[in-house]
Amino acid sequence: MTHHPAHPTPVSSDTPVVDRQALQNLLLGRWAETRRTARDVLKDPKFHKIEGLTMDEHRRRVLQQAHQLVEAKAVHRAFPTEFGGDDAHGANIAAFEELVTADPSLQIKAGVQWGLFGAAIMHLGSEEHQRRWLPGAMDLSVPGAFAMTEIGHGSDVASIGTTATFDPETGEFVIHTPFTAATKRFLGNAALHGRAAVVFAQLITRGVNHGVHCFYVDIRDEHGDPLPGITLTDDGHKGGLNGIDNGRIAFDHIRVPRQNLLNRYGDVDEEGTYASPIESPGRRFFTMLGTLVQGRVSLSGSAVAASKLALIGAVTYGNQRRQFNASSPTEEEVLLDYQLHQRRLIPRLAKTVALSFAQEKLLAKLDDVFSGRDDSDANRQELETLAATIKPTATWHALDTLQEAREACGGAGFISENRFASLRADMDIYVTFEGDNNVLLQLVAKRLLSDYASEFKGADVGALASYVASQAGSTVIHRFGLRRAFQSVQDTGDERRSANWFKQEDVQRDLLTDRSRQMVIDAASQLRSAAKLPQAQQASVFNEHQFEIINAAKAHAELLLWESFTEALSEIEDEGTRQIMTWLRDVYALTTVEQTLDWYLGHGRISTHRAKTLTPYVNRLLARLRPHLQDIVDSFGYEPEHVRMEVTSGTELQRQDEAREHYRRLRASSQAPVEEKNLARQKAPVS
Amino acid sequence: MTHHPAHPTPVSSDTPVVDRQALQNLLLGRWAETRRTARDVLKDPKFHKIEGLTMDEHRRRVLQQAHQLVEAKAVHRAFPTEFGGDDAHGANIAAFEELVTADPSLQIKAGVQWGLFGAAIMHLGSEEHQRRWLPGAMDLSVPGAFAMTEIGHGSDVASIGTTATFDPETGEFVIHTPFTAATKRFLGNAALHGRAAVVFAQLITRGVNHGVHCFYVDIRDEHGDPLPGITLTDDGHKGGLNGIDNGRIAFDHIRVPRQNLLNRYGDVDEEGTYASPIESPGRRFFTMLGTLVQGRVSLSGSAVAASKLALIGAVTYGNQRRQFNASSPTEEEVLLDYQLHQRRLIPRLAKTVALSFAQEKLLAKLDDVFSGRDDSDANRQELETLAATIKPTATWHALDTLQEAREACGGAGFISENRFASLRADMDIYVTFEGDNNVLLQLVAKRLLSDYASEFKGADVGALASYVASQAGSTVIHRFGLRRAFQSVQDTGDERRSANWFKQEDVQRDLLTDRSRQMVIDAASQLRSAAKLPQAQQASVFNEHQFEIINAAKAHAELLLWESFTEALSEIEDEGTRQIMTWLRDVYALTTVEQTLDWYLGHGRISTHRAKTLTPYVNRLLARLRPHLQDIVDSFGYEPEHVRMEVTSGTELQRQDEAREHYRRLRASSQAPVEEKNLARQKAPVS
Repeated sequence: MTHHPAHPTPVSSDTPVVDRQALQNLLLGRWAETRRTARDVLKDPKFHKIEGLTMDEHRRRVLQQAHQLVEAKAVHRAFPTEFGGDDAHGANIAAFEELVTADPSLQIKAGVQWGLFGAAIMHLGSEEHQRRWLPGAMDLSVPGAFAMTEIGHGSDVASIGTTATFDPETGEFVIHTPFTAATKRFLGNAALHGRAAVVFAQLITRGVNHGVHCFYVDIRDEHGDPLPGITLTDDGHKGGLNGIDNGRIAFDHIRVPRQNLLNRYGDVDEEGTYASPIESPGRRFFTMLGTLVQGRVSLSGSAVAASKLALIGAVTYGNQRRQFNASSPTEEEVLLDYQLHQRRLIPRLAKTVALSFAQEKLLAKLDDVFSGRDDSDANRQELETLAATIKPTATWHALDTLQEAREACGGAGFISENRFASLRADMDIYVTFEGDNNVLLQLVAKRLLSDYASEFKGADVGALASYVASQAGSTVIHRFGLRRAFQSVQDTGDERRSANWFKQEDVQRDLLTDRSRQMVIDAASQLRSAAKLPQAQQASVFNEHQFEIINAAKAHAELLLWESFTEALSEIEDEGTRQIMTWLRDVYALTTVEQTLDWYLGHGRISTHRAKTLTPYVNRLLARLRPHLQDIVDSFGYEPEHVRMEVTSGTELQRQDEAREHYRRLRASSQAPVEEKNLARQKAPVS
Repeated sequence: MTHHPAHPTPVSSDTPVVDRQALQNLLLGRWAETRRTARDVLKDPKFHKIEGLTMDEHRRRVLQQAHQLVEAKAVHRAFPTEFGGDDAHGANIAAFEELVTADPSLQIKAGVQWGLFGAAIMHLGSEEHQRRWLPGAMDLSVPGAFAMTEIGHGSDVASIGTTATFDPETGEFVIHTPFTAATKRFLGNAALHGRAAVVFAQLITRGVNHGVHCFYVDIRDEHGDPLPGITLTDDGHKGGLNGIDNGRIAFDHIRVPRQNLLNRYGDVDEEGTYASPIESPGRRFFTMLGTLVQGRVSLSGSAVAASKLALIGAVTYGNQRRQFNASSPTEEEVLLDYQLHQRRLIPRLAKTVALSFAQEKLLAKLDDVFSGRDDSDANRQELETLAATIKPTATWHALDTLQEAREACGGAGFISENRFASLRADMDIYVTFEGDNNVLLQLVAKRLLSDYASEFKGADVGALASYVASQAGSTVIHRFGLRRAFQSVQDTGDERRSANWFKQEDVQRDLLTDRSRQMVIDAASQLRSAAKLPQAQQASVFNEHQFEIINAAKAHAELLLWESFTEALSEIEDEGTRQIMTWLRDVYALTTVEQTLDWYLGHGRISTHRAKTLTPYVNRLLARLRPHLQDIVDSFGYEPEHVRMEVTSGTELQRQDEAREHYRRLRASSQAPVEEKNLARQKAPVS
């Protein structure tokens, strides 16, 4: 960003500097050109959110913008080339992520139309389905809803109540909402604009429920009126994203042709006989849902982009704004010179950068799977676990960062012209939709537990049990812990030696790996006893350790972010940039350890002497990074048209300069009033 | 709350139950009748926020509501009886807090008019000033702005740039904005409705600046047009509170009569001679600001009320909503039966109740000071420290609780009919205005440090130094720690013995006191070295420990909340209620210890063996409290007209009942489709 008057960064000649262009290239990653193209399109004010619109105005504007995205050829990258797409899946998400800078409502409107409605036709339908329905979905002549969630079932999709019962007499499916809780809810495009919907329902034929399948259903006629038997209700005003017309759909025995079943993973013939290429109903269900993982992947990337915007705002303002003059009689302190302000912003910057690199890995894996380069079952599962790990981490982080940035800009942060509160309100639901964050973390934890179990699959049960016992029961006799515990005995609390220890890459890796792994081992050992209990008791034992299990998943996410950051460091050629980014990686690692220090102390992994040096060392790292913060956020590569915040416009610096010039002249003119307190001192020196 | 169909609470006959009426009385506290009266007034829909209004509509509505509050005699309690008030300060805030249930914009509009504009006239003006201006302020015929904050100075009020220079020739003050940064900003009533303002400016007479004083200044004529020389600008759309017309005021050499100085703490005679009853300019400034502490006090109370609303919503929904059926083939789990859900809501409930009791203490002290019963300097300072401790704690807690409650209700939490997101957006700025939370915590920390220093004032410096050194340098030889460290050697990790230890009131007090105190001692010892350094270096040493110092203030707040909760327990007569509330207090204490467990481990206050039993014990406490959560939130005493959330309406329970009845009938009818997975098992038992 070059649009703000640069605050003279106090860098002495022997300190490293950031090569901003190189860092920008690294951060933009494999799809840099796509991101740059997408950002160029989004500079146009016609795509930008206008604050304070009514819900109706905002919905109209966003629909219009969505049509303009089609015109700008900005949203078809993932679709097959034969329909005018690029068959480019990673690039598609990379471009999609950038939409959040324009208006999160526009992003989610686009996500509903092309990432869910269109993607369901593409991934779950046949070639015939694609020929029939993809063009309308792609050019937005048929706005569509993604009718999965119901009032009664959000996270537990397998239990939805809507039924699609095959009637062999007419060769039709009867789509029906058998009770109120089975009404579809929270669907973008349902309240106003949708003409069709992909509807998830329990497929029933010949008296057998084959589980959740997806059907293409028209919902409105060409005048925009609901079709007979379709009840559409507006979900109304929301805490954010009011540019989306979320609504409800209820079906009263709606008949659709047999051919409206999107039949890639399950089909019914004229006689009503069901057939599927995937035998296991469970695996079939997860495979079908798995083809829609890009929704989740795109949310985490958008959350990273929003975090970057927040930090550009808060860091730029923190480099210009001054308040209080503790260290000088006249000169006020720049906010970012305060340790607390550094503490508030730099660890969040470090985590944002870590997430940015982790998201890049996620996109690469998504591209491998969806391009068919590596779409093995194992890799698909890895993709899903990775998405389930990063999505909660990134979306919660965005809310936290937007809020801290808002507060760090004081009252100015609350005015809509600075966007923090508006972005935060819009991003709020990102932690819930496309998989509730806590539910996703539970999936991650289950995967970690089953991976752990399968590692020992062939092993002797007795050996496993004693291995687990020795691991879980001990705070000292751990393969890493043992060595460290001995070290800690000799540990004299020498700060410098301790800092040298903490900054070693191997030490950081060991600490984070160790915790992540040990937490899984501990949880597994607790759950082992339940394996042979009846269902209810098994669930109860699992529930008693749910908090612990979720924390294990979080520890796994922390390690994953650290690994992504560390891998990226090796790609930096410029020495100064690598040095500074290594400090930032260290901040990520060590503030993470700081937050979970009780675990490391309690498990004998860090001695109390050493622990005492951690926070002072982090504080020194923050001070060291402080001169480089503006360069780092500038390297995110956003232009003024993307940032659009008054706090980054440079007016704060102008006002400060004007005020200082005023006082300077006043002092020079000798017309400056004397301060009473100074007068009192002069008058009464002996009192 | 009796309006929702009660979920059958699984309480066995030998477990205690909450006496809801008794608990309600305790929670409503000393001003229970005032609170009930205020709540009755606010049941009227005319006071309720309508979601989705435009900014202009919302501002108009809130102004009208403010007039209706005057008619309802709801906002004059703090004013002198001779003007129709009650001279009742604690009661005034108690009633004011409840306004947040109607619309936070209305609350803050009222706060600006009566709590700031009117209060400044009352507390800073003479009797003549009160006679002249209080009636217009009280009956809202003269809406007024509180013109303290400037673009350039928010937290550092002493450095504002607006000047009020006395001109002895005309006997007038000249109010002037000498540069852009001195423009008043973020002022409610400035953009549209204000006719007058109390303006804070540097009082200059005879070439001496006597510091910040307050002046009554007309800003608009009877047609609502700005008076000559006054520039009024709209701050525009905000992240919340859009019912308030925040704006800016700039003054171009505005002349006001000498008598417009609110002269309680400083006056200027016809010749321009300044006189004040308080000699020290610093003390005078803090005394003047101190008379306005009620603003801060009212925000913390409002934050507690908002947290209660959030928990009523999330607990009621969590008691009705079901998702996933891990423990049964047919029956789904109620959300609050999940450990994680308990973890998310119950500690926040515990802290809300602790804050409720702490706020009651704060109101009592405010009432003592403002009624004159105990308005000693020492007590005023205690009031200010208490307010500076509770306001940040309560306002951050409200944001955290509203967010968690929003997420705990999933997508439903995001729909405005459930108010979580709307309340959160409005409460966002509560952490910044009336004293930025981080700045307030720094004031608290400074007070703790100076209290600590004065404790040892008379002591031998050498003895003090060695005392501090022995305290700070050691993790073991602490007067409590020593004993515990020995205990821990014998500590076999017996869970039951450990739980018995954690639940002891004395242990909890020791743990929290110890940490709060030791952190101050440690910080003081670090800062001692700086005492004789020049200003810049002193500031630098202080800055290097700013994070630590803020954490000491937070530890102090945690202790204060625990003490308030514990004192309140002694007032509960009903045994069952006391038992349940004691568990809740224990949850507050022990989740606080859990969050800062690294400190207790690192300082040898809790052994690693014992630490391992803490989280399991907390989890057991949560399970024990789980059947009583609805009773506790019902005891907050809010009626459906205050809560106004769809999630508390009972429709969720109706929908669930309808769905279960549907499936029950289906099963009974023998028309239920067979699940494919069950079919597969039957067909292929040998595979």
